[in-house]
Amino acid sequence: MRPVAIVGIGKTPFGAFSDRDLRSLGVEAGLKCLQDAGAQASQVEAFYLGNFAGPSFVGQNHLAPFIAGAMGISGVPATRLEAACASGGSAFFHAVSSVAAGLYDVVLVTGVEKMTSQPTPRVAEILAGAGDCTGEMKAGATFAALFAMIARRHMYQYGTTREQLAAVAVKNHANAVKNPYAHLRKAITIKQALAGKFIAEPLTIYDCSLISDGAAAVLIAPLERASEFVAKPVRIAGISQTSGQFALDQRDDITTFASVRLAAEKAYRMAGLTAADIQLAEVHDCFTIAEIVATEDLGFVKKGDGGPYVEQGCTAITGARPVNASGGLKAKGHPVGATGVAQLCDLVEQIRGEAGERQVRNHDVGLAENIGGSGATAVVTILRRVD
Amino acid sequence: MRPVAIVGIGKTPFGAFSDRDLRSLGVEAGLKCLQDAGAQASQVEAFYLGNFAGPSFVGQNHLAPFIAGAMGISGVPATRLEAACASGGSAFFHAVSSVAAGLYDVVLVTGVEKMTSQPTPRVAEILAGAGDCTGEMKAGATFAALFAMIARRHMYQYGTTREQLAAVAVKNHANAVKNPYAHLRKAITIKQALAGKFIAEPLTIYDCSLISDGAAAVLIAPLERASEFVAKPVRIAGISQTSGQFALDQRDDITTFASVRLAAEKAYRMAGLTAADIQLAEVHDCFTIAEIVATEDLGFVKKGDGGPYVEQGCTAITGARPVNASGGLKAKGHPVGATGVAQLCDLVEQIRGEAGERQVRNHDVGLAENIGGSGATAVVTILRRVD
Repeated sequence: MRPVAIVGIGKTPFGAFSDRDLRSLGVEAGLKCLQDAGAQASQVEAFYLGNFAGPSFVGQNHLAPFIAGAMGISGVPATRLEAACASGGSAFFHAVSSVAAGLYDVVLVTGVEKMTSQPTPRVAEILAGAGDCTGEMKAGATFAALFAMIARRHMYQYGTTREQLAAVAVKNHANAVKNPYAHLRKAITIKQALAGKFIAEPLTIYDCSLISDGAAAVLIAPLERASEFVAKPVRIAGISQTSGQFALDQRDDITTFASVRLAAEKAYRMAGLTAADIQLAEVHDCFTIAEIVATEDLGFVKKGDGGPYVEQGCTAITGARPVNASGGLKAKGHPVGATGVAQLCDLVEQIRGEAGERQVRNHDVGLAENIGGSGATAVVTILRRVD
Repeated sequence: MRPVAIVGIGKTPFGAFSDRDLRSLGVEAGLKCLQDAGAQASQVEAFYLGNFAGPSFVGQNHLAPFIAGAMGISGVPATRLEAACASGGSAFFHAVSSVAAGLYDVVLVTGVEKMTSQPTPRVAEILAGAGDCTGEMKAGATFAALFAMIARRHMYQYGTTREQLAAVAVKNHANAVKNPYAHLRKAITIKQALAGKFIAEPLTIYDCSLISDGAAAVLIAPLERASEFVAKPVRIAGISQTSGQFALDQRDDITTFASVRLAAEKAYRMAGLTAADIQLAEVHDCFTIAEIVATEDLGFVKKGDGGPYVEQGCTAITGARPVNASGGLKAKGHPVGATGVAQLCDLVEQIRGEAGERQVRNHDVGLAENIGGSGATAVVTILRRVD
């Protein structure tokens, strides 16, 4: 397998855009990405699209050639990959694998979702399709309810507090204020977060990620060709996609995601690194508890210490290991199919040293964690500055 | 790239099964396939699922780990690929590419669709999602209407007749009678086909493929390991996935699919073969005109001669080059995501010499053609007996 680099990034703002359709978002991110890389559409040898539920949200399916064609990409494989909220990460994983294996040189990965054209109850119903509709979802357990159960159990086993959950929200809201592409740029206090309306106790509205429209794209190429495109290529040092038990009731321990632990283990091994080497991370904070669990499953802290870790400021932009400096799914926004790709764009900006107000101090090695459903899919990617 | 073989196949009957859910169909095909190969679920290193619209048909998304987990496949990449009616072929293309490139050894590909739980008008609406919902579909051009336009133009340019369209239907219905897994096992006459109710003139109900439930699966491995699994491995000699213009109005000539011609050219080159070497084929007869166009685009006959070709019996099971000996999408059935994988199962049965009553005489080299939408995606695969 040969080394692969990200040689271009592009993203749209995240938000609720009543005047934008799905295709135009995907095309904007893709074309910005090609421009960033100084590449032409005709150089793209394969197109991987991460999209969770375009057909349900906007009625359009067969989205990969639909978006590729509008960018002038034709005559090559154009395929949509779906793995719930990890659709973007999964598209990236398959694209990187194909370049690493020598199938292609120049591959474009785009993630996109247009969610806000549906009323919120319908959005919740579509999102529930990522869970077990014959079991937990049929019984009324929405994703907020599932993550509330995870939070309650985490509190019981490890003494995690509502204040610690709120600390994730406060941090990510503060970070999003510094991100011009974020959906919600509004600082909040612990007191506000705690006083939020309960969605599924102990999770309030401030513990939940946003329903957003948006897209993100990355262009990848063999590392040896990276200099044709960009001055500051970023290497994919390690990557893994894994699957795990689908529903919570199948698991021995719901306070951890086995799929994430396995994916992280494989990605660390591939990169020749350990958790201690990771300087910053974008993790899948679909709910605040998910960020706390992620910092544990990725080995940043030992099991049960994720609450104090965020509460003590270790994961702030100014902390020892910034987590979700972009604002995360919580405040940057969570257009499902775009999320996994946007995490990579944000890490690349940090590693290039181009993250503006939210630039972190140590930014040579970053990790992205993207999960689908309640962890039935996990993708972990480690990006590294090229010396 | 190393040679890859199909080392196991499994399929469910196609039909309308009110007592079967999507997962059970996918699991049945997958487990039959593992059994055919004498393989264990724990040997599967990656799972690729072809599914067009599970979320729209049955409300369930995130289908790859959902089905993989139920087969005991966990801890590996499990990903759904969607490319409209070419979802199955696309899943297979990506799986074969990954094994050829050395990423994995043992990979399971399953295609599945459960369509009949929705009323027909809703099915038509979901299928329309594979076309341009901002253009042709918005204007009321269903897929039947689009293929009717293709048929009309083909008639105008090449003198193709309604009787020749009907000959495709009569042949495929006759073949399906011999296929115990086919959805519709009922012979028809040219007179009956011509007298059918018009769906979109000149296409009658007999020119249209079926709305079906069903699943199919293949297990692939490096050719050098094939003997571990099966006595009669079948080699993937050539394969290509391409994309083309999305909507008909973007094309210079609607009587041909540029994506199919390009995919065929690439697959022939990879296999070191020409159209003359193809002894039998399973092609994408979503409408009868599509089979006629396919025989032309694949180079079996010259442009415009597809009508006489079928009318003269050349593509019958007893003809010089049997096409859709399985009954095709027309009569075997068309559970969208399953179709591209089922074509491969049917070819493998033929190449192994295990096709029973529908066994063709010369069966060393077979071709599958699977298209998405009105040809925005095309996958062409050439399978060959291993000497």
